Amino acid sequence: MALRAKIDRVAVTLQLLDQTLLPLREQWITIDTHTRMIEAIQALRVRGAPLLGVAAGLMLARLSRQGLSQGALLAQAQALRDARPTAVNLATIVDRIVEDIRQGALPEHIGETAVQIFHEDVALCDRIADHGASLLEDGDRVLTHCNTGGLATVGVGTALGVIRKAHEQGKRIHVYVDETRPLLQGARLTAWELMNLNIPCTLIADNMAAALMRQGRITKAIVGADRIATNGDFANKIGTYNVAVSCLHHGLPLYVAAPHTTIDTGCATGGQIPIEQRAPREVRGASGSFGDVTWAPPNVAVDNPAFDITPATLVDRWILDRGAFTKSDIHKGVLGSC
Amino acid sequence: MALRAKIDRVAVTLQLLDQTLLPLREQWITIDTHTRMIEAIQALRVRGAPLLGVAAGLMLARLSRQGLSQGALLAQAQALRDARPTAVNLATIVDRIVEDIRQGALPEHIGETAVQIFHEDVALCDRIADHGASLLEDGDRVLTHCNTGGLATVGVGTALGVIRKAHEQGKRIHVYVDETRPLLQGARLTAWELMNLNIPCTLIADNMAAALMRQGRITKAIVGADRIATNGDFANKIGTYNVAVSCLHHGLPLYVAAPHTTIDTGCATGGQIPIEQRAPREVRGASGSFGDVTWAPPNVAVDNPAFDITPATLVDRWILDRGAFTKSDIHKGVLGSC
Repeated sequence: MALRAKIDRVAVTLQLLDQTLLPLREQWITIDTHTRMIEAIQALRVRGAPLLGVAAGLMLARLSRQGLSQGALLAQAQALRDARPTAVNLATIVDRIVEDIRQGALPEHIGETAVQIFHEDVALCDRIADHGASLLEDGDRVLTHCNTGGLATVGVGTALGVIRKAHEQGKRIHVYVDETRPLLQGARLTAWELMNLNIPCTLIADNMAAALMRQGRITKAIVGADRIATNGDFANKIGTYNVAVSCLHHGLPLYVAAPHTTIDTGCATGGQIPIEQRAPREVRGASGSFGDVTWAPPNVAVDNPAFDITPATLVDRWILDRGAFTKSDIHKGVLGSC
Repeated sequence: MALRAKIDRVAVTLQLLDQTLLPLREQWITIDTHTRMIEAIQALRVRGAPLLGVAAGLMLARLSRQGLSQGALLAQAQALRDARPTAVNLATIVDRIVEDIRQGALPEHIGETAVQIFHEDVALCDRIADHGASLLEDGDRVLTHCNTGGLATVGVGTALGVIRKAHEQGKRIHVYVDETRPLLQGARLTAWELMNLNIPCTLIADNMAAALMRQGRITKAIVGADRIATNGDFANKIGTYNVAVSCLHHGLPLYVAAPHTTIDTGCATGGQIPIEQRAPREVRGASGSFGDVTWAPPNVAVDNPAFDITPATLVDRWILDRGAFTKSDIHKGVLGSC
């Protein structure tokens, strides 16, 4: 859990666990202004497609309590929506609140919608975990990429929620954690969450997984998603596609786990998903509560896409809250009606 | 050039450019004791399979000038040979000097052998560059991994020497540089060398290359090798196999460039090549002249193989000083007689 909210008749108070400081420091920050929330989203203090949506919904509820005009609220909603372009949950949830605003809903009602979105996320995670856990077997050695646990949602997580559930069912699961350069969400967040949960794990550099697969040391891979097109292509943290290609080459199944709110019915294929480019300094070094270091020549050119697209052909199961779907389900158009 | 030596009738003096401090500091260190050389090899102050061999040869020449007994020299040779287990050039060159020692050669003669090895490396690099450059075309966008340039050899390098030669021939080559976690030889060394040579380059995290390949932004990959088995399998920096799998999936050629001294005629397949495991702290963070940071939970389990094996089936050309060989050449056993 990386978000705390209190909603009463007077105000919405909102706190975030600053994820850029983990695992060294657990520091909660109070988000009292819209500017602060946008900054927290762009700096990845709050992150994870589902959690971004929940946080944005609560922020809009807070703003409506402060008596902003309908026009001002809609402008703020648009700015939140644009803060990160790839994760569709952010846009979907903002749009849901925008509908309330357009219909002139009272602040109390907008608050209720935001709370409902919060509770829905918990329930969605539980259902994803239930559907996914049955795909993991005792003895599996599962590769995961980025962070998809309790820090990325308000529930148990998506891909990591599946692993957690299988572990709780008594299956012996060992997790290989991709460090996930450049922002190191695997090394900093996933390793920390797994150790807190007492789930056995091994941290590796992203370029090591293929070699481990060749040695038979990885049996499956499971990742989250930031946006799923109706044909099953999906965007997720940069490096996910690399994992998918390695799985295919080694005959290992790749599962993607996400709530149905991650499906963008307006996107027919992955080619239509916008990919955020981030600052070159993220690749030239690393920074966080551990320090701020630059190891590359400071003026070297950098490519830094935050996400990549994995085509549906490389996916074995789409684990959603509504079921674990196969390629054949996807061909029949199940994602368009989720 | 990352090694300076002076040999006269009295002594051998040896200096190394401390590669752990690059690109922020260019600091030469004098290697006056055997212990210091072993430390420099293990800490990767001196690195690159060919350069390790040259440095070890010169160290033994220095020790023989100091009047060590045959027995003591042989013991020191063995310790040097064992300092890093994967790069075969180190062992091959030590063995060549050991032959001199066993035959009771005078210090002058051992010095001459070491100098000859030095000059041979320059010539080998030039021939590799000549054979390889003809495989690169105007407009190629070439991925490379780790560092294989003038810092890894005393000549122009192996894979990077090929790129340099093609650039000097007037071909427009753009290089995508894998940062090469965990020790960041790509970000620290290759990016620095390419910028010094005015060869256009873009630094990326290791997990990004596959996504760039899918977008058609990479046309070829070229890497070095630390040991080549006679069936064409080769060991190289961890992550090389991941590059090879991505190349295969996207129909891109993978070239490996190395001197014939990298072939281990005692290794029939890659399975026989020992792989060095390095300290967990290298994966839990990063350290160098830029600082010393740990971003993962300090007690998280880590896997840290320094190398991986790429099977011959994934290689398109073996670019050696004796020619650029195809799979068909390899099947005919050309590596066994190189």
